Formats: sequence, structure tokens, C-alpha cells
Amino acid sequence: MRGMTIAQTPSSALSVVVLAAGKGTRMRSDAPKVLQPLAGKPLLGHVLDTVHHLSAERVVVVTGFGAQRVQEAFAHQAHLRFALQEPQLGTGHAVQQALPDLPGDGVCLVLYGDVPLAPAASLAPLVAQAQTGALALLTVELDDPTGYGRILRSADGAVQGIVEHKDATPAQRAVRECNTGILCAPLPALRRWLGQLRNDNAQGEYYLTDVVALAVADGVPVRASTVADADDVLGVNDRSQLAHLERVVQLRTARRLLDAGVTLADPSRIDVRGALHCGRDVFIDVGCVFEGEVHLADGARVGPYAVLRDVRVGAGTVVHPFCHLDGASIGAGAIIGPFARLRPATALADGVHIGNFVEVKNGTLGPGSKANHLSYVGDATVGSRVNIGAGTIVANYDGANKHRTVIEDDAHTGSNSVLVAPITIGAGATVGAGSTVSKNVPAGKLTVARAKAVTLDGWSRPVKKK
Amino acid sequence: MRGMTIAQTPSSALSVVVLAAGKGTRMRSDAPKVLQPLAGKPLLGHVLDTVHHLSAERVVVVTGFGAQRVQEAFAHQAHLRFALQEPQLGTGHAVQQALPDLPGDGVCLVLYGDVPLAPAASLAPLVAQAQTGALALLTVELDDPTGYGRILRSADGAVQGIVEHKDATPAQRAVRECNTGILCAPLPALRRWLGQLRNDNAQGEYYLTDVVALAVADGVPVRASTVADADDVLGVNDRSQLAHLERVVQLRTARRLLDAGVTLADPSRIDVRGALHCGRDVFIDVGCVFEGEVHLADGARVGPYAVLRDVRVGAGTVVHPFCHLDGASIGAGAIIGPFARLRPATALADGVHIGNFVEVKNGTLGPGSKANHLSYVGDATVGSRVNIGAGTIVANYDGANKHRTVIEDDAHTGSNSVLVAPITIGAGATVGAGSTVSKNVPAGKLTVARAKAVTLDGWSRPVKKK
Amino acid sequence: MRGMTIAQTPSSALSVVVLAAGKGTRMRSDAPKVLQPLAGKPLLGHVLDTVHHLSAERVVVVTGFGAQRVQEAFAHQAHLRFALQEPQLGTGHAVQQALPDLPGDGVCLVLYGDVPLAPAASLAPLVAQAQTGALALLTVELDDPTGYGRILRSADGAVQGIVEHKDATPAQRAVRECNTGILCAPLPALRRWLGQLRNDNAQGEYYLTDVVALAVADGVPVRASTVADADDVLGVNDRSQLAHLERVVQLRTARRLLDAGVTLADPSRIDVRGALHCGRDVFIDVGCVFEGEVHLADGARVGPYAVLRDVRVGAGTVVHPFCHLDGASIGAGAIIGPFARLRPATALADGVHIGNFVEVKNGTLGPGSKANHLSYVGDATVGSRVNIGAGTIVANYDGANKHRTVIEDDAHTGSNSVLVAPITIGAGATVGAGSTVSKNVPAGKLTVARAKAVTLDGWSRPVKKK
Repeated sequence: MRGMTIAQTPSSALSVVVLAAGKGTRMRSDAPKVLQPLAGKPLLGHVLDTVHHLSAERVVVVTGFGAQRVQEAFAHQAHLRFALQEPQLGTGHAVQQALPDLPGDGVCLVLYGDVPLAPAASLAPLVAQAQTGALALLTVELDDPTGYGRILRSADGAVQGIVEHKDATPAQRAVRECNTGILCAPLPALRRWLGQLRNDNAQGEYYLTDVVALAVADGVPVRASTVADADDVLGVNDRSQLAHLERVVQLRTARRLLDAGVTLADPSRIDVRGALHCGRDVFIDVGCVFEGEVHLADGARVGPYAVLRDVRVGAGTVVHPFCHLDGASIGAGAIIGPFARLRPATALADGVHIGNFVEVKNGTLGPGSKANHLSYVGDATVGSRVNIGAGTIVANYDGANKHRTVIEDDAHTGSNSVLVAPITIGAGATVGAGSTVSKNVPAGKLTVARAKAVTLDGWSRPVKKK
Repeated sequence: MRGMTIAQTPSSALSVVVLAAGKGTRMRSDAPKVLQPLAGKPLLGHVLDTVHHLSAERVVVVTGFGAQRVQEAFAHQAHLRFALQEPQLGTGHAVQQALPDLPGDGVCLVLYGDVPLAPAASLAPLVAQAQTGALALLTVELDDPTGYGRILRSADGAVQGIVEHKDATPAQRAVRECNTGILCAPLPALRRWLGQLRNDNAQGEYYLTDVVALAVADGVPVRASTVADADDVLGVNDRSQLAHLERVVQLRTARRLLDAGVTLADPSRIDVRGALHCGRDVFIDVGCVFEGEVHLADGARVGPYAVLRDVRVGAGTVVHPFCHLDGASIGAGAIIGPFARLRPATALADGVHIGNFVEVKNGTLGPGSKANHLSYVGDATVGSRVNIGAGTIVANYDGANKHRTVIEDDAHTGSNSVLVAPITIGAGATVGAGSTVSKNVPAGKLTVARAKAVTLDGWSRPVKKK
Repeated sequence: MRGMTIAQTPSSALSVVVLAAGKGTRMRSDAPKVLQPLAGKPLLGHVLDTVHHLSAERVVVVTGFGAQRVQEAFAHQAHLRFALQEPQLGTGHAVQQALPDLPGDGVCLVLYGDVPLAPAASLAPLVAQAQTGALALLTVELDDPTGYGRILRSADGAVQGIVEHKDATPAQRAVRECNTGILCAPLPALRRWLGQLRNDNAQGEYYLTDVVALAVADGVPVRASTVADADDVLGVNDRSQLAHLERVVQLRTARRLLDAGVTLADPSRIDVRGALHCGRDVFIDVGCVFEGEVHLADGARVGPYAVLRDVRVGAGTVVHPFCHLDGASIGAGAIIGPFARLRPATALADGVHIGNFVEVKNGTLGPGSKANHLSYVGDATVGSRVNIGAGTIVANYDGANKHRTVIEDDAHTGSNSVLVAPITIGAGATVGAGSTVSKNVPAGKLTVARAKAVTLDGWSRPVKKK
């Protein structure tokens, strides 16, 4: 949008103001509320992702509490503008702070950084209505509307105003359609109304909601569209609401996975904090946690209680219970775990077996290689058909620097062997059990570093002291 | 049933036809829908287990999509007959394909391979009604019957027909009793009605449901019995329904365990995929998964997040968190885990302790023996009161073949020792810490294979490179 | 209360009788029902904790089935008196057994050892009412009161009696206010009424409930207060009810944590069996279990599937998935796990790293020390900035006794090294990879115990036998 000037903005252009100044006292947190994570992403990040789908020309985030932290958290989104609301004198006041950053024309959608799930599909109609000159409100039907502002409509359905719960008559309280606070308006009118807001109320604040009455007084049509699911417009004010929305998001994700043909052993026990891409006939057992970008290819099976972050799992590969996989790429037909740990920069070829109590870090294993028991493989390039014996340690760290180990095809390392890097184990070499080797091991031969066993005749086992 | 001829079938004999031809497109799977697992068993397996309780004389499974895979999956049930429906022209057409395999007389119960939970107790009355000459339907009262065929009854309660939702009057739509598709009929009548089915409908299919109208036209009485729980007759068409039924089955299992006196920390977080047999005062913590046949004796306690498959756990034994036990038998008063892995052909005697990061495979440990830390015990016969030191590896694999290790009573192995099989550690022997032994170790003595420690004066630790 | 005599008891003094004699047949347990654990504490313990908040002068527990086990379980609460009910002839009979232990005056509150959640806030009003001379009942409004005794009130709201479900008229059955059995009465009147109870009923038992009719006959006012939440007065008769209350307690605990500002990834997947104290901005991931006293300081993060018992976690410390921490104190800024095991008497200073497959028992690690891979550190005093190499075993056990190891500041131990206790590794010392050392290692130098590597030319790898 570089070089775009306001004059070029067509009258229907969309600006978005996201209110993100609140402290969220009831969160009892040192962090700004809009940075609290939901499904692994800040609340405000959810809103901005939605805005991305609306193709807004201008997006202004109004910050206040923790403004710098909020701005830093989204510094990578270069198109965002930030307006500071200080002090914080209400929602109407907040939008006022954004006005200098908004164009003179077009429409303006007001969103809330702590209402993370308002869907683009529900917002787009508001934008369209505002583009016809109306003030467009997003409303919601609540089973229990106690405390919420009610939408008042005339007999023909036209919105006539909003009445706060405390001011409502019994008949008005029977109304279940409530104001969500989300609205879209023509910018010139919005500027005018914001200038007319008054703070002669108990809180001494400027309420954005009051623009509805001003619009009605102006004879501007007020439209309302209703969201079907109240969770879509639920604001987060405390940790219970955050936890509630976390479950909403997770169950929606689970539903999408099921619809796509993934088998979930329990849709209420899967957590996806990022993007989980699944092939055909993938099975995910109970209690798995996925973070970042995870790809599970056709027929992959993930056992109970696996934690995967930024991992690619190949077709038909089985991840057994209790695995912790982070930053790894795994080929097809591999067997991982139980109790396996893969750390970043690990690449396992097809048919690799990584067994229990084995950690691989910054290592590659070629096709068919195995490390099945109690091993640490760090900073290593392992060939094909290699067998890493039980208890093998690839000693990559000399106490100051890390070094690389190469284990060529078909090599075997004995139980409890130590390979002191930098070192190369030649193709087809065998390192004897219990051997610590610190120099290259020749290919095709057995290399052993082992003391001779001696039996002590006179020795007697210690006895237990009282 | 070998040698049984149709002529010998009494007129009340029960035949069962199970429809299992559907692809289940909405499952988005390469596998036939009826092979999808529910609580660890294929959907069709649940139906056939129920049929087993009904003592049917003849069971015909009608296959279609993936017919060969279905047939192979149940090849071990030699009494089953399979009829191929190709192409698939509706449920009535499906039953027609089974007719050549059915006797001339008796009654025929039609079940569905994707309706896994229809209980024998609800099916038996249908069989009894059909044996009196009636057409017997299984029905269900639905809170929301939208989309289902309604059961129409006369004032005296007699079933007069079924009307599809789309054809129903408002009064008929108010009926909540719906058709499940499960029915039982006298075979001669069923043959006749199937021959009269027509496919002059939008789908061009032959509907089994149409036999109801034919029965009414014939003056054959139509009876209906209603199942209390709609889950009993829920069909699986997509992964959401499969996941729903998985939870239904698991909660029912949990309820049974609770009724039997087992303490479950959370009945909504236990998964049983097979048979779990519990003694008195068994405690099962949150998140455990049981597969195959698992026996937990009196007073056994299973900690959170244990995965047990085909395991016997002795009285009073404690399984700590994060254990993965497969194919093992554990005595009384043992302590297992946390983080223990037992693999098939493991037998632990009373009072054995297996600690953290320890794997036992194809090994026996005698009474009171311990392997508490970071060890691999493979292909070993371990006596009584043996102490396997931390980091001990029983090196059972020479790179080509596996060999057996014998550790006799009261032997101790030192930390990080390696026992290279085949080898025998004599009774009361001690293997020194850090020793790799590849020849038999004499009883009652200390055997050490250890290099002398040397201190290098001139050496200086590497420094971190920039 | 030593030296207090009954004569000194003011007339308003509170005595509490807790009925705890029942066997709880439907629990199918060998243990007395009141000892069944709820959130890690016996049912009776919950009741006695509540009583503690009521400042009772005298508390009598009426035991019966398993009386000795019950008495032993609470032997540490020296102020408790125990009365034996043998045989068990009803609730009225049970209270009669407590009378010899009660003072002559004041009021008496009757509670039930298997009704664990009756809150002090609901009981205090009963006590106050009894202190005015009334018989005070605790009642509950049930959605489905079937089977419960209904509270009958006159037009002015005064309680006129209780009618059992089976004796109730249709109008009485429409009453949803039910008797909970919990009551408080002036002791002199209670004694009189108990003496008038009759057992001419089907069970041949003396029912405490009958005192209501006796009070009405005496002209004593009967007051009733209603609890808002039926779970508060739910009795435990079988494992399903126990499991239900376990979830009630856990969800209430989760709610309290959320209100206090803790982020819970899933409030329905956290188990707290004891006291969990959290600082500001603590994050607890799914599936964690807390037992005993656990403290999580500001900004601490606990990953999925961690089990913590009696642990202190310092500010900003991260506990990765699959950790089992018991009896440990962890400083600030530490990194623990995944797959870490801390056992009792472990103290980790600020900035310590304990990695995967590492066990620490009765050990201290100084600031910045690390044990990141496959190690056992038992009975060790480890200084600052020490690096415990992968596979290091601190061999604390000589087969009979345990010995202590000291590892001084800045020491490094090589991979798969064994430190045979008692031993001291000097400051800045390095133990070479694969070395087993059993004598003190001098400071600042490299000490190695390693056999020379030999390559065997003639050797050939075994071949797989058929």
C-alpha cells in the first residue's frame, strides 16, 4: 500500500479500529490482556488475522495499558498503525484516538482486541451495510441477556436504539438480542458522532454505543446482523472466560479435523496451538498437544500423550506414547518412541526407529537406522542401516564447543559406548560395547576400548550399616 | 454347525444378515467403514459380537466396498458367510444378495455393520416377535427426529407404516418414534417382500424399509420395540459420529468399572480398548489407556498416564505415572515406574522394582529384584534379590543375533556396566561399576573391568570459540 | 482445651457429632467408606476440616465398620473423641452413642462422614438457629427429589415436618425442598428426643429424622436453611458418586485458580490433591496432577502431563512435559524436563537445567548447573556451573549402604562417566568420557580412566542365524 494517499481511497474503503487499550484487571496479570494467548496466539492476533481476511485499507490498533509490549508483539506486521489512548476514558474516546490515522472517507469497522473469535463471515455484512450509508451493528441472541444492552427494534424490524439493562423496562428486558459493541459506520458520520459524545454518566466515560442514538437522531438507518454463536462475540475479561474460549477453539479445531477424516480418540482431549495438517486416515490418540506447524502424512498414527511442535511425520509412521518431538522431520514408515525426544534440526529418513529414552538433537539418521534404547545422539550425521547400541552417547560437547560426529552406513555402536566428537565411525565399523572412542574408527572392523575383566578373590561385599 | 442342512433348521431358527457394503464416503478413508475401530475393535466386530449372543444359526455379512479387506478381517470367524453386493443398489438389494445363503425357513434379523451398539437385549424381542409370524421393527424415540422416518401407529398402537420425513404431514412430523432400519421377519415372507421391492424413487434404490408397507398390505402384523438409548442405534457415517460413539462406549465401560467397585479418578479420562478385569479396591488415576486383556489384582494402583496392553498386575502392586507396559506379567507388591517400559514376554515376580527410564524386554526378574534407573534388560533371566545398577545394559544383540543373559540370585551389577550376552553372572557376584563383561562372572566375587584413572597435569579445558 | 470441664461450657457451646459408622456396601471396598479419598483426602477428613472452621468445643466421631482403621487414620487429631456404634441401628441410634461424650448443654450439630462438601458457611446458620432454641435443618432444592424426604412448611414458611417420599401425597411430592439429614439442635432437647425415638419401622432402625416430628410435637420451632448447590450435601454411597464429587471438587479448585489469575489450558484436566499456591501469571498446561503442598512462583510455567508432589517451583521456571517431581525445591529461572524425575530432598538452585531421562534424588545442584541427558544424580552435593555429562551415573549405593558425592563448582563429568561414592570431584575438574572414578578427582585437571582403543583386523561381524 506504499504511496497510497487518502485522496486515492475510494469512498467504500474499509478502515478497521481495534480497541486494545484495556488492562484487564480481572486477569490479575502483568501482561496486557490482548497479549494473553488463546490456542497459542495472542487474543489480538486472532482479531488481526480476521481483519486480514477483510482486506482493510487501514488498520489502527488503539493501545493503552502495556502499549509498548503490544506494539512490539506485532511489530512484524508493518502495515499496522498504533494509536495511544492515555488516559482511558471509554470506548468512544478510544476510537477518537484512532481518527487522526484514519482516512476522511470510506467506512470504519470497530473491533475489540479481547473479542477474539468474531468471524470474518459475520463482519463482512456489516461492512457492506455501512458502505450503503448505514450504521451497522453486530448483535447476538443470548439465552440470558442479563446485564447486556438490548437492541430495540420497531415493528418493521428497524433498529431504533439500544437500552442498557439497568434502564430497561420489563418488556425491554425480555428482548434477547443484545449489543456486542462491534459496529461499522461511514467514516464522516462516525467522526461527527464521536465529536458529539458526552461523558455525563456515572463512569465519566465516552461510550461508543451512544453513536447509535446519534445515528437514529440523524435519521441514518441502523442495521443489525446477528451472530449465531454467542462464543463468536464473547469478550475475555477473566481467566475463566479465556479458558472457556480456549475450549471453544479447541473443539472447533477438533470438529474440523474430524470433518476432514482424521480419527480422534477423544475430540475433547486434543490441543492444537498452531496449524495441524493431516493426510488421509491419520489417527490421533488421546491427550496429544500440537504446536506450531505440524504435518501428519497419510496413515500416520500418533499415540496417547504425544507433544509435537513444528514436526513433519511421514506416511505410515507410528509415534508411540509419551513422545516429545520438536523441530523434527520424520520420514515414512518410521517408528518413534515411546519416550522419545526429538529436538530441533533432527531429520529422520524413512524407516528409522527411535526407541525409548533416546534423544536426538541436530542429527540426521539415514534410512533404516535405529537408536532404540537410552541414547543421546547430538550433532551427528548418521548413515543408513546404522545401529546405535543401547546406552550409546554421542559426546558432542567438549565443555566449551560442540562438534560433529559422522557415523557411516552400516556401522554399529556397542552398548554404553561413547563417541567423542569430532569423530567419524567408518562404514560397516563396529564399536565394541563399553568402548569410549575419541579417534576415527576404521570402516568394516571392530574397534574396542575395554579394560580386561579381573575377579577379586578376597573381596567381600559391604554390609549394611545400622 | 458342520453337517447341518437347511432341512434340519427348525422353523424358528434365526438367521442374521449384516449389511456391511457401504463405503462411508464421509469418513474420507481408504478403509471400509465397518473396519473403523471403536474401542479398539472394528465396528463390524461389535455387531458380530452381539450376534454371537443371539445364537444365530446362520450369519451372512453383505460386503461391497473393500469386500476383500472386510472378509479377511473376519476370516478367523469360520462360521461367517459373505455375500457380495456389487453394485450397491440399496438396503433391500443388499439383503437380496444374502438370500441364497439363507435357509428357506425361520426368521431373519437384519443388522447394520455401522450401527455397532444395538444390544442383544433389544434385538432378542424382535426375534421372538418374528417367530410368532410378525414383522418386528426396532424403533427409537428421538428428541429431534428431523430427517428420520416416523413410525405411524393406529389408535390401538399397532404399527401401520413408516413415513419418510420429507413426505410427512405436520402431525406425522410431531411423532418422535423413528425407524432404526433394524428389523426381523419370517424368512418366507421376507423373500416374498424383497421380490416385490421397486426402485422407482429418486435414488433408484431398493429400500428395505418398503417391506413394512408390503407387510401391512399382506395383513402381516407389524410390531415395534423401542430402545431407550438413542446411542444404541446410532449409525456411524462420519468421524464425529465415530468419536461420539467412542466416548459413549468408554463412559459405559467406566460406569461398569465404578459399579464393580473400582475407583476412577476421572471416568471421562479412561480408555479401555479390550477387557479390563479389576479386583477389589483397585485405583486408576487420570488418563490411563488399557488395551487387550488387562488384569489388575486387588489393591493394585495405576498412576496417571499409564498405558497398559495385555498386562497382569499383581495384588497391591503400584504402577507409577508414565509407564508403558505391554505383554508383561507383574507379581504382587511390585513397584513399577515412573517412566518404566515393559515389553512383551516380561515376567516380574513379587516385590520387583522397576524404576525410571528402565526397559525390560523378554526378561524375567525373580522376587525382590530391582532395576531402578536407566537400564536395559533384554532377553535376560534374572534371579531373586538381584540389583541391576543404574545404567546397566544387558547387551543382548551382537548386531545379528540375540543371546540370553542369566543373572543369578543376589548378584549386583555396577553402574553403567555392560553384560555382553550370552553370559552368566553367578549367584552373589558383583560386577564393578563401569565394567563391560563378556565372559561368565564367577559367583560370590567382585569382577571388575576398569581402566586406571590418570590425571593429566598439562591439560586445559577447551575454550568457547566465538 | 485441656482442663476444660463441662460445667465451664457456655450454654451456646457447639458440639459436633459426625456419623462415620457405615460400611458403604455399594463401594465394594474393604476400607471403611469414610476413608475413601476425595481429592487426596479421606471423605471424613473433609468433614473434619469443615468442623475445624466452626470452632466446635467437642467433636465426636461415631465409628462402626472398620472403627479401628478410622480412628487410626485420624489419631493425629488429638481433640477428636470416638464413639463406637455396634451394632448399627440407624442414624438416631448412632447419635445416641455419642451422647456420653457430649456436654449437658449447648447445641449439637450432626454431620455425616460421607457427606464431604457441606460448607461451613451453610452450617454456621444452623448453629446460630439452634443457639436460639430451635431445631435447625439443612435442606436442599432438588430438580428431581424422587426418593428424598420432603420438607413440609405451613403457609407462613414454618417447617411442620418431613414426609418420606413413599408416604407423600402427590402435592407433597411436588415439593422440591428435601431433607439432607444435617441438623443442629439444643443438646438437652436432642437428648430428650433421642430417648423417644422408636424403631417400629420396616428396617427396625432408629431414625434421627424423627426428631423433627418430636420437636414439632414439643412446640420447638423448626428452622430450615437451604443450600444452593446440591453437590454440597451429596452423600457418597458408591464409586460413581465418589467420582462425581471428585470432579466437583476439582472443577471448584480450577475455578478458584482461574479467579486468582492462573491460566489453565483446560480447567477440566487438572487434578489438585492438596494445596496449590500460585504466584502471578502462572501457566498450567493440560493434564497436570498436583499432590501435597505445591508452590508455583510468579511466571512459572508447567507443561502438559506433569506430576508434582510437595514441590516448590521458582519464579519464571519452566517445567517441560512429562516431568515427575516429588519433594523438590527448584529455584528461579530453572528449566526442568521434559522427562525429568526429581525425588525427595532435591534442591535445585536458580538457573539449573535438568533434562531428559535424568533422575535426581537427595541432591543439591548449585546455580547454573546442568544435568541434561540420561543421568542419575543420587545423594550428591553439586556446586555451581557444574556440567553433568550425558549418561553420568553418581553411584551412591555400594550394594549395602549409600554414600555421598561432592562435585565442586565448575566441574564437568564426561559422557557415561561413573562417580563411585564417597567421592569428591574437585572444583573445575574434568572427568573424561567413559571414565569410572572411585577416588577423589583433583581440582582443575582432566582425569581419565579409559582403555586404549584397539582395532581388530581379523574380526568379522556375526551373521544372522536362520
